[in-house]
Amino acid sequence: MKGSPLLAVDQALDQLMQLAAQATLQAVEQVGLEHADGRVLARDLLAPADSPPWSNSAMDGYAFRLAEVAAGPLPVSQTVFAGTAPDPLAPGSCVRIFTGAPVPPGADCVQLQENCRVDADGRVSSTVPLRVGANIRVQGEEIGAGAPLLAAGTVLGPVALGVLAAQGMEQVAVRRKPRVALLSTGNELAKMGAPLAPGQIHDSNRIVLKTLLRRLGCEVIDLGAVGDELALIRAALEQAAGADLILSSGGVSVGDADCIGSLLREGGEVRLWKLAIKPGKPFTFATYNGVPFIGLPGNPGSALVTFLVLVRPYLLRRMGVVQVEPLRIPVVAGFDWPTAGNRQEYLRVRIERGRAVLQATQSSGTLLSAVEADGVLEVPAGKTFDMGELLDFISFAGVVGPGSSH
Amino acid sequence: MKGSPLLAVDQALDQLMQLAAQATLQAVEQVGLEHADGRVLARDLLAPADSPPWSNSAMDGYAFRLAEVAAGPLPVSQTVFAGTAPDPLAPGSCVRIFTGAPVPPGADCVQLQENCRVDADGRVSSTVPLRVGANIRVQGEEIGAGAPLLAAGTVLGPVALGVLAAQGMEQVAVRRKPRVALLSTGNELAKMGAPLAPGQIHDSNRIVLKTLLRRLGCEVIDLGAVGDELALIRAALEQAAGADLILSSGGVSVGDADCIGSLLREGGEVRLWKLAIKPGKPFTFATYNGVPFIGLPGNPGSALVTFLVLVRPYLLRRMGVVQVEPLRIPVVAGFDWPTAGNRQEYLRVRIERGRAVLQATQSSGTLLSAVEADGVLEVPAGKTFDMGELLDFISFAGVVGPGSSH
Repeated sequence: MKGSPLLAVDQALDQLMQLAAQATLQAVEQVGLEHADGRVLARDLLAPADSPPWSNSAMDGYAFRLAEVAAGPLPVSQTVFAGTAPDPLAPGSCVRIFTGAPVPPGADCVQLQENCRVDADGRVSSTVPLRVGANIRVQGEEIGAGAPLLAAGTVLGPVALGVLAAQGMEQVAVRRKPRVALLSTGNELAKMGAPLAPGQIHDSNRIVLKTLLRRLGCEVIDLGAVGDELALIRAALEQAAGADLILSSGGVSVGDADCIGSLLREGGEVRLWKLAIKPGKPFTFATYNGVPFIGLPGNPGSALVTFLVLVRPYLLRRMGVVQVEPLRIPVVAGFDWPTAGNRQEYLRVRIERGRAVLQATQSSGTLLSAVEADGVLEVPAGKTFDMGELLDFISFAGVVGPGSSH
Repeated sequence: MKGSPLLAVDQALDQLMQLAAQATLQAVEQVGLEHADGRVLARDLLAPADSPPWSNSAMDGYAFRLAEVAAGPLPVSQTVFAGTAPDPLAPGSCVRIFTGAPVPPGADCVQLQENCRVDADGRVSSTVPLRVGANIRVQGEEIGAGAPLLAAGTVLGPVALGVLAAQGMEQVAVRRKPRVALLSTGNELAKMGAPLAPGQIHDSNRIVLKTLLRRLGCEVIDLGAVGDELALIRAALEQAAGADLILSSGGVSVGDADCIGSLLREGGEVRLWKLAIKPGKPFTFATYNGVPFIGLPGNPGSALVTFLVLVRPYLLRRMGVVQVEPLRIPVVAGFDWPTAGNRQEYLRVRIERGRAVLQATQSSGTLLSAVEADGVLEVPAGKTFDMGELLDFISFAGVVGPGSSH
C-alpha cells in the first residue's frame, strides 16, 4: 500500500453510511419506558391525545372572564386545584385557581395572585391589565392528537421518554440492540491478569471499545485478546456467527504479521483503507462468514478516534438513526497551528475560559491525556491556523456521555 | 413568600455544595473494570508500572544505531515483531521492526519503511535524515511507575477505564452508588396505565428523573406518583428510609394544597427557595427522618433544568466528584434578546451552522421542544444581547449523555 493515496474521512464515512443503510437492523422489540433509555425508536409516533389534555392554569392566581374584569371586584365562586374537574364559571364571579388546575369553562384568562387585590369582603380584582388567554396553557398547544410526536430513528433519552410518558404511553417499539463481537489482536497482548512477558503490553482497547459499544446501545460478545495465529483467530471469529458486526483492533496494519487479513480475504472483498485521519490511518472493512467486519488500528488513541468518527455513525445508522454525526461547535483556538498536515487531525483539547487549549500529549499510543481532555478539535487536512481562529470542537461527553473530566 | 427576594442560582449552588460536602458517601466498593463504567474513583491511583513498559517502535520500519547510519547500507540482523523480546542490536547492522515491537538494546532510532531503501543484497539505508529517538516511544514516556495516574473523584468513562487496563489493573475502588428515593406528587397525576379522569395528566417527571439519576450512577427507589394527602405521602416517604436522597417533584409550590411541606416542617428546617432561575423558581431542601430531601417544581421543563443545574452537581459532589459543573462553551447567539429577565434563564436551542437557534417553544410545561434541542443557552439575570453575541452553551448530551437529537 506504500504510496497509495489517502482516503478522505468524509468519503470513508459516505461509504460506511451506504453499507450501513443496506444492513439496517429490522427486528423491533416492544419495551417498557423504564427499559427504553438509549434505545432507538422503530416507528414514527403520532400523539394519541392532545397535550395538555385540558386547558390549565400556568400560575397560582384567579381565573376571570375578561369581559367581566372591568366591572370591578368579583366574588370567588369556586376554588380549583390541580387534578379536579371545575364547574363552569358562574356569571359575575371569578375562580381561585392553582398551577396545573383545569380552567373552568367560561373563564378565558388567569391573573397571577401577586397581581390581584382581595378586598375585605373576599371580592377579587386584577390590578394589572389582562388579555384573553393570559397564563392559560391551552388544550393541545404542545401537540394535538394525531400530530407527529417523535420520528423513527430518534434515540430515546430522558427527555424523549418523558414526552412519551406525558402521552400516557407505557411501552414503545424500538430497534433491537446490535450484537457486536469484539476482539483485540496482537501477539504483544498479555492475558488479562497475567504479568507482562518481555515485549508484551496490557490490552486497553477492549475495555474502551466495549464500554463505548454498550453506551451506544449494543450487546457485546467479548472474544478476548487473540494472538496473531490463524487457528486462534479463526476459532475466535467462529464465535461471532450471528453477530451484526465484528469489531477488531490491531493486526491489520502490519503486513508481515497479519493473519486476520488473510482470513478475511478468503471471505471476499476486503477494503483496506489508508484514511486521511490522525490519529488513525489503517481501517479495514470486510465480511467474514456473512458478518460485516471492521478492523481498527491497534494504537489506543487511533482506535478511539476512528471508533468515534466512523464506527459510531455506522452503528447508529444500522439502528436506523438519522442524525448520526456528532454535534460540532465552533470554538476559539488557544494556540497556533503553523504546519499543515496531510490528514484530518483530531487534537485533544480542554476548554478553558472558552478557548480550546491543546493537551500536552497527542500521541496515539497513549490514552492518559484523553482522560483530561474535554474533547477534540477537528483540523482539516492542509489547514493551518492562528490562535483566535474558530475550529469545530466535538465534546467527548457529547458523543460518548459523561465520564471524561466533565 | 410573596415579594421575598429571589436567590441567585450561584448562591443556591454554593449552599448545596456545602450540604453535599458534609454528606459525602464514604463506602467504597471494589469492582471489575467491566462494571466500573460511570462509577467514581474512590482513591488517588499511582501508576504501578512504566507506560509504555518497554521502549517500542511507533512505526513499521527499520531500527538503527544513529552513529552507524551514515556508514551506508546495513544488513538486517533480526526481525522484531510486537510481543517478542529482541536480541541486542548487532554492531554494524539494522533491525526490521514493526509497530509496537520493543526496540532492541543498542538501537536508538527507527526509520519508517517508506523512508528506507532496500538494496538487492538486502542491505538497508535511510533515505531521509534521522535523529536519536526518532519514531521510538520511550519506556515510561506516558507515565512512570509511581507517578499519579488518576485522582480520586474521577468519573470513570471508557477512556479512563482504558488507562487502568493499560496498567494491568482488573479491579478498581469506587464509591458506592447513591440510593435516591424518587416520587412525584400531585392530585392531578393519573395512575400509570389508567385513563385520564377529568383534570388529570400523566406523570412524565418520574421517568425523566429516573433515567437521569440512573445515568448519573444512582440506584433509584421508585416511590411512584403520590396524591397530595398526608397519609399517602407519609407512607411513601417511609419507604425512603436508608436512601441517600429523597427527590420529589411537584407539590411544594402550591401553598394551599401543600401536604409535603407540612410533613417536612415536622422534621426540622425547610429551605424553601425562590430561585432566580427560569424555568424553575420553587426549590426545596429539607431533611426527612435524617434523609436529605430535594423538592423540584412540577412543571416538566422546570424539573429538568433545576435537576441539571442543581441536583446533578449536588449528587456528583456527594459521590466525591471534584468537577461537578457542566462544560460551558461560548456560542454565537442566532437571535436578539432585547428584554432582560430578573431570573437566570436557560433557553432551549439548536446549534445550526455554529449558531444557537432558539427553539420555538420555551414553555416550562412542555418537554417536546427539548427533545429536538441540542442544549441550553445560559442567559444571566438582567442580561440583554444582540444576535452575534457570545453566550454560554451547555449541551444536553454533555451533561446527560447521548439521546437527545445528538
